[in-house]
Amino acid sequence: MHVNGKSYTAVWMEGSSVMMIEQNLLPFQFQIYEARTHQDVCHAIKTMITRGAGCIGVAAGFGMAQAFMEAPKNNFSSYIEKAKADIEATRPTARDLFAATHRVFEAGKISVQQALNESNAILSEYVEAGRKIGEFGAKLIQSGYRIETHCNAGWLGLVEWGSALSPIYTAQNQGKEVFVWVDETRPRSQGARLTAWELHNEKVPHKIVPDNAGAYLMSHGMVDMMIVGADRIAANGDAANKIGTLEKAIVAQKYHIPFYVAAPRSTFDHNCATGNDIPIEERTENEVLFQTGIDKHQQMHEILVCSPESTAFNPAFDVTPHELITGIITEDGILSYR
Amino acid sequence: MHVNGKSYTAVWMEGSSVMMIEQNLLPFQFQIYEARTHQDVCHAIKTMITRGAGCIGVAAGFGMAQAFMEAPKNNFSSYIEKAKADIEATRPTARDLFAATHRVFEAGKISVQQALNESNAILSEYVEAGRKIGEFGAKLIQSGYRIETHCNAGWLGLVEWGSALSPIYTAQNQGKEVFVWVDETRPRSQGARLTAWELHNEKVPHKIVPDNAGAYLMSHGMVDMMIVGADRIAANGDAANKIGTLEKAIVAQKYHIPFYVAAPRSTFDHNCATGNDIPIEERTENEVLFQTGIDKHQQMHEILVCSPESTAFNPAFDVTPHELITGIITEDGILSYR
Repeated sequence: MHVNGKSYTAVWMEGSSVMMIEQNLLPFQFQIYEARTHQDVCHAIKTMITRGAGCIGVAAGFGMAQAFMEAPKNNFSSYIEKAKADIEATRPTARDLFAATHRVFEAGKISVQQALNESNAILSEYVEAGRKIGEFGAKLIQSGYRIETHCNAGWLGLVEWGSALSPIYTAQNQGKEVFVWVDETRPRSQGARLTAWELHNEKVPHKIVPDNAGAYLMSHGMVDMMIVGADRIAANGDAANKIGTLEKAIVAQKYHIPFYVAAPRSTFDHNCATGNDIPIEERTENEVLFQTGIDKHQQMHEILVCSPESTAFNPAFDVTPHELITGIITEDGILSYR
Repeated sequence: MHVNGKSYTAVWMEGSSVMMIEQNLLPFQFQIYEARTHQDVCHAIKTMITRGAGCIGVAAGFGMAQAFMEAPKNNFSSYIEKAKADIEATRPTARDLFAATHRVFEAGKISVQQALNESNAILSEYVEAGRKIGEFGAKLIQSGYRIETHCNAGWLGLVEWGSALSPIYTAQNQGKEVFVWVDETRPRSQGARLTAWELHNEKVPHKIVPDNAGAYLMSHGMVDMMIVGADRIAANGDAANKIGTLEKAIVAQKYHIPFYVAAPRSTFDHNCATGNDIPIEERTENEVLFQTGIDKHQQMHEILVCSPESTAFNPAFDVTPHELITGIITEDGILSYR
């Protein structure tokens, strides 16, 4: 997709380095982070330099391939085993991470080159999955639709095209008029920062709304459909996604608004029978207590935005039960579990 | 209530000045704003130096009394009429504002002293209403309850005691153990800034949560009841309150969690048959796009927290229909409209 008119994917490989758009600096600065080792990749996933289920998967796959390239001959398999464990310990919820490390780990048993090929194949598959999700999803979108989305499930989260945003980009490319309500998505504000930035770059009309405005918009007939991404989908169709998704799904049902999840098949985890089996990451309270941004002189600041003596609780995801989901848009078509 | 151990009300009169706690600087700085004229009071209400239905009512009443004191003999009634219109133009949603200007305006027809007496009576009535709301509300609270609240409906919003927080303070005074989940309440974060600050000063255990965490908490059985305030209540029991309240009420119903509104009778507007008749204020998008806070050197900054080229939509209130409200806690007891 585009940044100031130039094409990018969110993660890619150059030589033995994994390159990624530094998403913590967006939308204020556009920088590329170079991960020279699989440890750098671990750092990047953990600190959310790259984020979103797809990008985590691609970065994890590349990191696993790096480990095969780095591993010393005299300690090969224990180095690889440890690298796999380290990569898998970075973020617990995203299914795609584990799928990617597993695939590259298995391929690496044949050869280092095979590990590298596999990690590149993962990237290509995500690009193609995103494109197809867009094709299937765009069929649901009529011209004039006002679509609400939560968090960032665009190309920044899925390497290219995106999951939740791909149908929107595709519908616009087909000449349909679309408008997007962008949930701010506290505490990390991926909606206000990343989704809004993506939509601006692709010239999609949109407005940022506080997460609190969802029920207002829906109860006033201002939302025609909602599309969100997912971090892990259980065998029964329950979907873990950014905190606040469950709330929107409940409100959408109340006002009879179609609620879609968009995700590649790699996000499905058949080892989880239901959403109760999906581990939910709790992140530092500092994400709630502090905010970063730029002042009018373009100077970056981290400021305390809460009462100084108080603490916070910060669960990063919630699980939306399948009965609240109208359909799951995948690269293979639209699935329903209701 | 208490600030660093010292007793305060949120608004009071000293001589011909209306004094109020400068709520835009909280929780980082504690300052008193002195409104020397009714125009200063208009400015204070409009810019939210004081806020919350009760404080708006008290400040409006005092401002109206100031107008009677200020009015020149040769132009008395047109000065008063204009002052009333100006005060009433400051915030459209809060019912209490109009009730207060009306009362003081009528009393002023007798004498200026009568106007002043009436405005002081309004203050006393809010203090007493807050106290009684606490008494009735505390009966609903069992020791060990974890109570979620949205926005600030504490003593900073109702001069003293508060509406939603008064039952919590009273329950704690009665020796019950209470814990409060404080919704951040974007975009102005009155929860994270004001409610958390109040609770800290009153030593009530609490944690700030992103607004997005509501459904997570409720679906995990971590909330025993929810109490919020109101800005205007229609004749059928529909209640306008801070944006995001409707969303929480819908989620609370889904998980069978009691959802209470707490408000003095002055918040009821029998001229509004239903919530559809309540005017909803739309505020500037800058409240969503920018945030203020302090850096680690205690320096205050206003920073942009959204994508620089995007715009925002900022409705300030929503209306919760009466069928989602378990009961309305008033100074006269608990009302149900279901």
